[in-house]
Amino acid sequence: AVPQSEYIAPRDARRAWMTGFTGSAGTSLGTPVQPPAERSTGRVFSHSLGSITCTAVVTQTRAVLWTDSRYWVQAERQMDCNWELERDSSVMSIAQWLIQEVPPGQQIGFDPFLFSIGERIPTLIYASIADNLVDKLWEGRPEIPPDNLTRLQDTFVGRSWQQKVDEIRERMMENPYEPTAVLLSALDETAWLFNLRGNDIPYNPFFYSYTLLTLDNIWLFVHNRRVPEELREYLNASSPCQGPHCVQLPGYESVRQHLQSYVAQPDVRVWIGTEYTTQALFEIIAPEEKLLTSDYSPVLIAKAVKDETERHVLRRAHVRDAVAVIQLLYWLEKNVPGGQETELTAARFVENCRSNQALNKGSSFETISASGPNAALAHYSPTDETCRKLRVEEMYLIDSGGQYLDGTTDITRTLHWGTPTDFQKEAYTRVLMGNIEISRTVFPAGTRGMLGRRALWEVGLNYGHGTGHGVGNYFGVHEWPVGFQSNNIPFQEGMFTSIEPGYYKENDFGIRIEDVAVVVPAKTKHGHGYLTFDTVSLVPYDRKLIDTSLLSPEQLRWLDSYYLKIRTTLGPVLKEQNLSEEFDWLMTNTEPFLSAAADASCGVARSTLFRDSLYESFLLM
Amino acid sequence: AVPQSEYIAPRDARRAWMTGFTGSAGTSLGTPVQPPAERSTGRVFSHSLGSITCTAVVTQTRAVLWTDSRYWVQAERQMDCNWELERDSSVMSIAQWLIQEVPPGQQIGFDPFLFSIGERIPTLIYASIADNLVDKLWEGRPEIPPDNLTRLQDTFVGRSWQQKVDEIRERMMENPYEPTAVLLSALDETAWLFNLRGNDIPYNPFFYSYTLLTLDNIWLFVHNRRVPEELREYLNASSPCQGPHCVQLPGYESVRQHLQSYVAQPDVRVWIGTEYTTQALFEIIAPEEKLLTSDYSPVLIAKAVKDETERHVLRRAHVRDAVAVIQLLYWLEKNVPGGQETELTAARFVENCRSNQALNKGSSFETISASGPNAALAHYSPTDETCRKLRVEEMYLIDSGGQYLDGTTDITRTLHWGTPTDFQKEAYTRVLMGNIEISRTVFPAGTRGMLGRRALWEVGLNYGHGTGHGVGNYFGVHEWPVGFQSNNIPFQEGMFTSIEPGYYKENDFGIRIEDVAVVVPAKTKHGHGYLTFDTVSLVPYDRKLIDTSLLSPEQLRWLDSYYLKIRTTLGPVLKEQNLSEEFDWLMTNTEPFLSAAADASCGVARSTLFRDSLYESFLLM
Repeated sequence: AVPQSEYIAPRDARRAWMTGFTGSAGTSLGTPVQPPAERSTGRVFSHSLGSITCTAVVTQTRAVLWTDSRYWVQAERQMDCNWELERDSSVMSIAQWLIQEVPPGQQIGFDPFLFSIGERIPTLIYASIADNLVDKLWEGRPEIPPDNLTRLQDTFVGRSWQQKVDEIRERMMENPYEPTAVLLSALDETAWLFNLRGNDIPYNPFFYSYTLLTLDNIWLFVHNRRVPEELREYLNASSPCQGPHCVQLPGYESVRQHLQSYVAQPDVRVWIGTEYTTQALFEIIAPEEKLLTSDYSPVLIAKAVKDETERHVLRRAHVRDAVAVIQLLYWLEKNVPGGQETELTAARFVENCRSNQALNKGSSFETISASGPNAALAHYSPTDETCRKLRVEEMYLIDSGGQYLDGTTDITRTLHWGTPTDFQKEAYTRVLMGNIEISRTVFPAGTRGMLGRRALWEVGLNYGHGTGHGVGNYFGVHEWPVGFQSNNIPFQEGMFTSIEPGYYKENDFGIRIEDVAVVVPAKTKHGHGYLTFDTVSLVPYDRKLIDTSLLSPEQLRWLDSYYLKIRTTLGPVLKEQNLSEEFDWLMTNTEPFLSAAADASCGVARSTLFRDSLYESFLLM
Repeated sequence: AVPQSEYIAPRDARRAWMTGFTGSAGTSLGTPVQPPAERSTGRVFSHSLGSITCTAVVTQTRAVLWTDSRYWVQAERQMDCNWELERDSSVMSIAQWLIQEVPPGQQIGFDPFLFSIGERIPTLIYASIADNLVDKLWEGRPEIPPDNLTRLQDTFVGRSWQQKVDEIRERMMENPYEPTAVLLSALDETAWLFNLRGNDIPYNPFFYSYTLLTLDNIWLFVHNRRVPEELREYLNASSPCQGPHCVQLPGYESVRQHLQSYVAQPDVRVWIGTEYTTQALFEIIAPEEKLLTSDYSPVLIAKAVKDETERHVLRRAHVRDAVAVIQLLYWLEKNVPGGQETELTAARFVENCRSNQALNKGSSFETISASGPNAALAHYSPTDETCRKLRVEEMYLIDSGGQYLDGTTDITRTLHWGTPTDFQKEAYTRVLMGNIEISRTVFPAGTRGMLGRRALWEVGLNYGHGTGHGVGNYFGVHEWPVGFQSNNIPFQEGMFTSIEPGYYKENDFGIRIEDVAVVVPAKTKHGHGYLTFDTVSLVPYDRKLIDTSLLSPEQLRWLDSYYLKIRTTLGPVLKEQNLSEEFDWLMTNTEPFLSAAADASCGVARSTLFRDSLYESFLLM
């Protein structure tokens, strides 16, 4: 899925409640800040990220909402006359509006819990107000879900929470600035550390929580009523407990006051990741010498590299997930010509296929099932109003993923059941070339970014979203800080990322090809310690849309090696599940592209990489 | 040239004076901070850049120098017994040393004039001391050069200083944070703004200076005795002057006190670039609301994009420069077999050829002339002790550049006069593939970085320096913020950058291929507003070292189009200068690689780019 709006709990949908406008919910950050919330405090905010999908402002005299063109119609329809719609949602234009509207010297209130420090709110212009004004007015605000937190079974977990705690404490002791505590604000940091999951956020197994970890104490801030006795025992939180592995449960609401009293002590230094720590906690940690910052907390960095167990089970989850997607592709091919299927029936079909796979816990995000022009809207999801019938003469894009107890998946395929135009084939092939070029790149550890857009740029095409994002083990489908952007961290062995170039032609069609790949060691002719990607998504591409004459011999070779891996890995599984028609479909659709002739062709370097990375991938399956 | 140590004036060589160690002079920043100086305050420094080439520390009991392995031998030899040499020069190890040596609560002094804010010195550990302790002890410290500053002739300048001042003031007025002043600390910012040059730094036509620019005033801080009457008139600084284009000359030393009194006024806000503003001036600008920061000052950003005149004359400078380099290559081919030539005689020869070209003002950096194993030291320059004879069985690397009144050049060629090994050919070809792949890439405006290392990585080879850096019009040879690193700014039409991948095999040989290219518009099949590179260096590569079987048809096509450009552009010039032997040499060495057969080969996309970019380059010559 293309990272854009993450999901939030209904009780955090403050802007929607205030304005009536329900579009563009949530934040554009990958990892939910605590609590994950729409960015409307009933006052105003602006931040330095440059890209704002939606901003709401209330002054004494005016109420204004900024959103980008995708949402103008919907916003006009949903908002009452108290609200004005501003159409230029750039940071600059908002800043200019504020400079005109807000008298000099006066400040603009914001809820410090809804902003991470990473957003660098200039404190001269903005005043932090910890008790949210909207919450005070909001009658009938949804409650925190009552459901208990759950722990992951040991089979899905490489390290116990005690081992993880020790690991983080080691990183604290290695740090020359000698932090005495690590504060965790991001929901998945705490969930990862304790191998716990919850259901507070749609599609994301997170729960409201903070953690304050010192060298000998652990404070876990959750709603204690949701921690049953067996979890208390699991956390050594029930009976009186000695030693460094006793979790104390002071209660979710007490985090601010608790941090205050910790910081008040002498010789303490709190280590935070600036990207995901909320302003509300940051402003407590003073004076400066009591603070140690890095972009990401040591937990988020440790979490980014999966251990052996995590890699193994995450690969397994992708095998089962591929079965569901192949069932869909086969079903579509059979039924679309009948003319009765729609974007919604297709979405429901794949979701149902997933639910029949072992360990499935639903979808990892709202399925994007988009036909023809709908697919040109990068974040379209079908509704009864917008839903299109699927037609053989239209291109179709489906971007979907599942949550499994052993992993999270995310895959996009673009299809055409009729005769694609030359331009559709060229665009599709050049998008695919992006996937292949990234996937077959060999690079030293510590590399960031890749050039997945090049084949498109060469003919003046491009796409307006990132090229990929990390994925987790039964976690968020967009797992920072792994990815291809400059603010992502360098790639290391054991990181999983999506690779998803695309192309979108307005009012016509959209193309996206998305696979998840894991960073693995690469054998090279002269060097050591090099890495490459091994694709763990195992679904073939639409043959009809590939113009092989655009592909280099190496690219064709990569494609064939990938298809060989799909056959050998998935074939047996499909038989096992008695999906013989799907098995036949898979064999037909993964036949090698490369004739012996083509393989022998021209003076292009025959890289030994192809055989190696193939070998790697089997080695690691 | 590979950006590493910039040059400094003798009077700023404090660390060398203190320690005796002369290696690794200067800073690792591209643009000289003001004043450009060795990083030794006679106390200590450490910064967050991670890479430190040399650090000196003096505490009450110890005197320690950190430097990397390239300099250990030299440092041991040059330093007396008062100094200890520490071999791990990582920021971490220095930090750890300090934590052990410096009692808690105590601070470490540093000269705030020698550090830019960009280096983020943690003010709890470090105390700013404006009067440098070394200067107090240093007897016979060299004086500021007495030479007058000079102005550029109008023919080399696109915009008068008044036009540039107006441009910067426009950017100030466009800025929503409403800065009232811009402060310039980097030497080339002031030199660019006023179209002035000096000779304070070896190889760099800079002069000690600061500028404080407001909407109606201009203060230029230089040593006034160096400003003759005609320059005062040129700057409207002599007779009483009205209006916004009067330059006031309060004197170099008064900058700090002058800035203090400016900031003391109400409703002022000073705009600085954090990368090149010194701590000494930054700490004056308080409280926070009087400060506006961006990574680079509006001057450095404006300077990065050359105007039509600057592009034109900079291209011309490269044409004359190519003549000098081709004279060298021809001369080497003729004379190396004789066995009498050395790294030094070759360096002197090319420097002499340059000095015979019009408008030459000497070299733009110390020529790197390195044979065999010497070339594996990325920053080697020959001395009488280290100098090697040039031999037909050894590989040879020459990295040199010239200062011309109309431009600065920088080019590297690697040569072999005998029979290169297969590995040498493969490594050279893969380095060249990096040059070509970057050069032929088509990308949208605003792109950063490129994948120049890919062909090397594929076989496990790599290089340990940046892939390129901006170059100026009679300016520094390393002109930030243009380049390929993540902290460089996005590429725009009119930016000039070097492209210089390499490969270095310790104790054996070194390869670097460096060309300067300008960002130009690219015609694409489907899109508009795309850019590509047009190479302005015009010297062929060593044919003997190119394994054409590794090159793709597009790469061969690019090579042929480049050679065609060299022939058509440089051929006439060589004839003009009566260099007929060099002309014949050029024709032999720029014959096309691509036979009609090869051109027709295999199913690789025939990109229209080749013809377009060729067309572009003639269009723009």
